[in-house]
Amino acid sequence: MRATVMFGAGDVRIEDVPDARLIEPTDALVGVTRAAICGSDLWPYKTMEHSETGRRMGHEFIGVVEAVGADVRTVNAGDVVIAPFLISDGTCVFCREGLPTSCVQGGRWGEDRVDAGQGEAVRVPHADGTLVVLPVGADDTLMPSLLTLSDVMGTGHHAAVAADVGPGRTVAIVGDGAVGLCAVIAAKRLGAERIILLGSYPDRIALGTEFGATDVVSERGDEAVERVRELTNGLGAHSVLECVGLEQSTLTALHITRPGGAVGRVGLPQEDSVPDAIATFFKNVTIGGGPAPVRAYIEALLPDILEGRIEPGRVFDRVIGLDEVPDGYRAMNEREAIKVMVKP
Amino acid sequence: MRATVMFGAGDVRIEDVPDARLIEPTDALVGVTRAAICGSDLWPYKTMEHSETGRRMGHEFIGVVEAVGADVRTVNAGDVVIAPFLISDGTCVFCREGLPTSCVQGGRWGEDRVDAGQGEAVRVPHADGTLVVLPVGADDTLMPSLLTLSDVMGTGHHAAVAADVGPGRTVAIVGDGAVGLCAVIAAKRLGAERIILLGSYPDRIALGTEFGATDVVSERGDEAVERVRELTNGLGAHSVLECVGLEQSTLTALHITRPGGAVGRVGLPQEDSVPDAIATFFKNVTIGGGPAPVRAYIEALLPDILEGRIEPGRVFDRVIGLDEVPDGYRAMNEREAIKVMVKP
Repeated sequence: MRATVMFGAGDVRIEDVPDARLIEPTDALVGVTRAAICGSDLWPYKTMEHSETGRRMGHEFIGVVEAVGADVRTVNAGDVVIAPFLISDGTCVFCREGLPTSCVQGGRWGEDRVDAGQGEAVRVPHADGTLVVLPVGADDTLMPSLLTLSDVMGTGHHAAVAADVGPGRTVAIVGDGAVGLCAVIAAKRLGAERIILLGSYPDRIALGTEFGATDVVSERGDEAVERVRELTNGLGAHSVLECVGLEQSTLTALHITRPGGAVGRVGLPQEDSVPDAIATFFKNVTIGGGPAPVRAYIEALLPDILEGRIEPGRVFDRVIGLDEVPDGYRAMNEREAIKVMVKP
Repeated sequence: MRATVMFGAGDVRIEDVPDARLIEPTDALVGVTRAAICGSDLWPYKTMEHSETGRRMGHEFIGVVEAVGADVRTVNAGDVVIAPFLISDGTCVFCREGLPTSCVQGGRWGEDRVDAGQGEAVRVPHADGTLVVLPVGADDTLMPSLLTLSDVMGTGHHAAVAADVGPGRTVAIVGDGAVGLCAVIAAKRLGAERIILLGSYPDRIALGTEFGATDVVSERGDEAVERVRELTNGLGAHSVLECVGLEQSTLTALHITRPGGAVGRVGLPQEDSVPDAIATFFKNVTIGGGPAPVRAYIEALLPDILEGRIEPGRVFDRVIGLDEVPDGYRAMNEREAIKVMVKP
């Protein structure tokens, strides 16, 4: 079968790989009908050292079940299913607590004989825990929005939950990528009174405003901090959603948080320390977040998509075939596209 | 009048200073009957550069009101009052939200013509906001426990609140100083199922066990982390209370936190970054805390002291007069005393 393999920074290829197949009795074999390129795929795209064997790519996909192992109970051949960006067994102590990202049997797509999403098919371990059956056909018009439940919509929601968004709160969102834009949807959905989006790309800002952002701050660094302070009577935002992961964006997030407020960080941290610890301490700011337990959020967010109350799928502004995936990476990396959907 | 002045590291003196007096109509003049030396006073005691004018010391005190300004409404001459470790007006947006440590008119003892606690008398600004009247006489036997409400008991409570302590939770407390010991009381009071105290001084451990610690870990660094993991089925503690503030203690706190758990930090941070940000991110650990809004906690904790349910005053293991304050600093710094009470 054919699948996406990254061999180094800027070097993404579509390769022939061994066919996906069932190995464990808890596996499902899924033919991929939709996949996505993630902003986090751009980190290795910028920095990965050359590898002879390469790395299979893709952790967001929807597909049709082709076969299941003998121990699979909740998923059947023919089901349309969505996979979250991590594998989880659904039964361990952390899965039961709603934190499948810490599943003791969990794993990542593309590692340990597991396929990745940007390809024709995937062997899905722990199918009962990992997959969620969707009550729609494989070509439903809601597919773009449903696909966001595999990562970006759940991640935006996690940022909002970690930052304690709720009615009456002033929210600031750092980053206008697909996650930041989904965070706008999540903040509005949770009742935020005011939603300040920090971003500078006109197409993204326009979409963010349609999603519910009430204010846009396009300055950067200290000027952005100053602008948010002006918008909040000098106090800062109650809830700040950090959707980038760079040191500068983290600093901005901490600086615009109101005393007693909370930062939800979902941008993959590029530094191994959180800066500005003393000022943050004196403000009693809480820092939460991490990889979003999107598997645990799918059931909660699904009805809002099925019933049309939220449309996170609008973050996809380009749809390509598998052969065009290398160009999809280029387009996202050059900010030509917000987010790319792949139809293998 | 006489008061404690620090002129540099290790150089604490009792000096003649101008008499405390009313200046603003919102002031109260309080004659100090009990004061305390704080663990945080030991940071300048270890590191302060020499100063010709010196720095007035003491931010924990109880006293009797001698006079009040024309605008003071809730405090009267003769009242026995307790002061929290920061000044707050009680009316600003943050005071109303329960965060008097961020009071927009707030201030510190010993600065800006305000006296400090380790002396004979104090000019108290914003008396209505800052002071709480105690329903006991000035020499009540409960004075040691009441005095802890000015800082260490409220601070231990804040660590527990920030770390989301509650019924069924496994709690770990990093630090066996007066704050760590009060954190044990706070964790037990909030219903923690298990309380692991990390500390190595026998007298402190003994008191911590009497306060409710169920396990003691006296190892340090990686060995302490390993020991806590053994005690928690390899998972770590749900709630970790960081009561020291050093980089090493912060690392220990983060390493022993269970995925999805929370760290409440109340130890004054000695570094301007929080370490281990990536692992903490992947575990979805929340980091909260800061200077405790003890003024907001006094009403909640006071009944438990008045009715004898908690005895945080047992952290005071030495009582001295004002002249002995320099030796009190030495004794605390050399770990000869857990916490020192001063009767001016």
